[in-house]
Amino acid sequence: MPSEFDLIKQYFTRPPCGDARIGLGIGDDCALLLPTPGSRLAVSADMLVEGRHFFAGADAESLGHKALAVNLSDLAAMGAAPLAFTLALSLPSPDTAWLAGFSSGLLALADLHGCSLIGGDTTRGPLNICITVFGELPAGVALRRDAALPGDELWVSGTLGDARLALAALRCDAAADAILPLIPPLSEADLQQAAQRLHRPTPRVALGIALRGIAHAAIDISDGFAGDLAHVLARSRCGASVDADALPAGPILQKMPAALRRDWCMAGGDDYELCFTAPPCLHAAVLAAGLASGTRVTRVGRIDAAGGLRLSDGDGNMLQAPPSFDHFGNS
Amino acid sequence: MPSEFDLIKQYFTRPPCGDARIGLGIGDDCALLLPTPGSRLAVSADMLVEGRHFFAGADAESLGHKALAVNLSDLAAMGAAPLAFTLALSLPSPDTAWLAGFSSGLLALADLHGCSLIGGDTTRGPLNICITVFGELPAGVALRRDAALPGDELWVSGTLGDARLALAALRCDAAADAILPLIPPLSEADLQQAAQRLHRPTPRVALGIALRGIAHAAIDISDGFAGDLAHVLARSRCGASVDADALPAGPILQKMPAALRRDWCMAGGDDYELCFTAPPCLHAAVLAAGLASGTRVTRVGRIDAAGGLRLSDGDGNMLQAPPSFDHFGNS
Repeated sequence: MPSEFDLIKQYFTRPPCGDARIGLGIGDDCALLLPTPGSRLAVSADMLVEGRHFFAGADAESLGHKALAVNLSDLAAMGAAPLAFTLALSLPSPDTAWLAGFSSGLLALADLHGCSLIGGDTTRGPLNICITVFGELPAGVALRRDAALPGDELWVSGTLGDARLALAALRCDAAADAILPLIPPLSEADLQQAAQRLHRPTPRVALGIALRGIAHAAIDISDGFAGDLAHVLARSRCGASVDADALPAGPILQKMPAALRRDWCMAGGDDYELCFTAPPCLHAAVLAAGLASGTRVTRVGRIDAAGGLRLSDGDGNMLQAPPSFDHFGNS
Repeated sequence: MPSEFDLIKQYFTRPPCGDARIGLGIGDDCALLLPTPGSRLAVSADMLVEGRHFFAGADAESLGHKALAVNLSDLAAMGAAPLAFTLALSLPSPDTAWLAGFSSGLLALADLHGCSLIGGDTTRGPLNICITVFGELPAGVALRRDAALPGDELWVSGTLGDARLALAALRCDAAADAILPLIPPLSEADLQQAAQRLHRPTPRVALGIALRGIAHAAIDISDGFAGDLAHVLARSRCGASVDADALPAGPILQKMPAALRRDWCMAGGDDYELCFTAPPCLHAAVLAAGLASGTRVTRVGRIDAAGGLRLSDGDGNMLQAPPSFDHFGNS
């Protein structure tokens, strides 16, 4: 059986990347980073657990992509540029095919964002992936959750809900959920397209960077739009009015009944889009940031001084907000 | 059932620590660090898995201590001063008694070292603790594994083997291990003292800092002296001669038969002492660093230009080096 150290060497060690900010990479007690002088170092950690965040037997290459993508999404939500990451991995066995696929998906996305794997840990145990990611940003431009201001326009990047639709189709669980209608049968092509959103999310790194100096508050939508927006509202001590029908449903969810579309845009989860606020005077700048980063941006509401979430449909009728997803809840 | 966010808030969020290098702590998509200008940021990640690194039902307070201690030990082995850490935690259920104990042990050690908890993740799953730790050190003083030089004296901090002795007594597994003699019965007091070494290791942070500019190479002894020394030798492309009887056995292991004492000093594991090299001309400086940091230091051999590990007993007879512990091996 190959040793832990052989495994790390074989699948995760690569030649030095040439980034002068990486003083020392994998192979010592610590990695050494030399952050750009004057910059802020953004740090985020996410843990993915089999059976909770992904299906047992999930494709290893997609899982490698997703494990890093959800962390890069946190950097994006702060406006930080990726620098490096550590990987701690617990595996039931040193499965070489799995490691080859996982490292391939992981490192391809890392390369795309110039984000170096600088260290970590490998051990035997139930499948568990923990990534801590590091990014840089200049002083004073972080997109903080507590920075939304009454009067701000509320925006969402990309589209919502297709990941949740794929999850429902793959779990065949929609029928068991009394508050939701049955999902109509999906064509194989539609299921594949929606499943891409679930298994291979796109972190909105370029948009996050483009929004520096423009957006006030931002958060990434991992647990569902309504729940994640609630964090911004709580931290910023304000409320919001949202037009549920303005929420940009994904192309597959678009084909579904209106009630399902609305529910899974509001509280689907696994979208990894950015929800952000910006003053109305910078409306055109937000659109330009979207264009510059090749990312669709949609205005979906506004920030209010009065607390709480006021949800309406396209005709102005008030709706009730659904509960947010919670990793310790019953959903 | 309390939500994930309530849990984090209740047990792990504390008032701002006043450290100006922590720009933003728990509660946003990322934490923000403002490293000291010109300093290197040392980064290390360790994952602890139930049944692999600790017993099911282990005392939560000790586990909180140990989870951070093993990470601080990596900083110590680099000569870095602790700055901050992230915690990702997978738990079978939001057990408030467990969380209270775990956070208490974790944060007490964090306070002792001025190391702030700045973020993380909590999710449901098999018990798994992943900590990523950050430390600072000036340019050019990192104690790297590849820096040992032929002629260096080889040193070990503290004492070795009592953690392995406690593990054997608690697992009652020594009898099943054909290469080891039965361990004599331990008194309750001796077992308690040895178990402290297993469950509440002391990271040698002050010694690591005191050795800046004195030691060449260093590593922390987590998998066993011989195995960890082998990493230094491989990276430094050199060998070593070690007097097995000079290895400082722990006070409880001291009472055991010579063969057991030697084996578990060489390859016990879970010691979290530093193994380091320094030029002979700095012998007195090493002793002074030990005194200044209140840490025993013992010279146990020397670095050779010829590769491999040459092991002898106190009388100069050659011995065979035992295999090192490996998280994917069969030991």
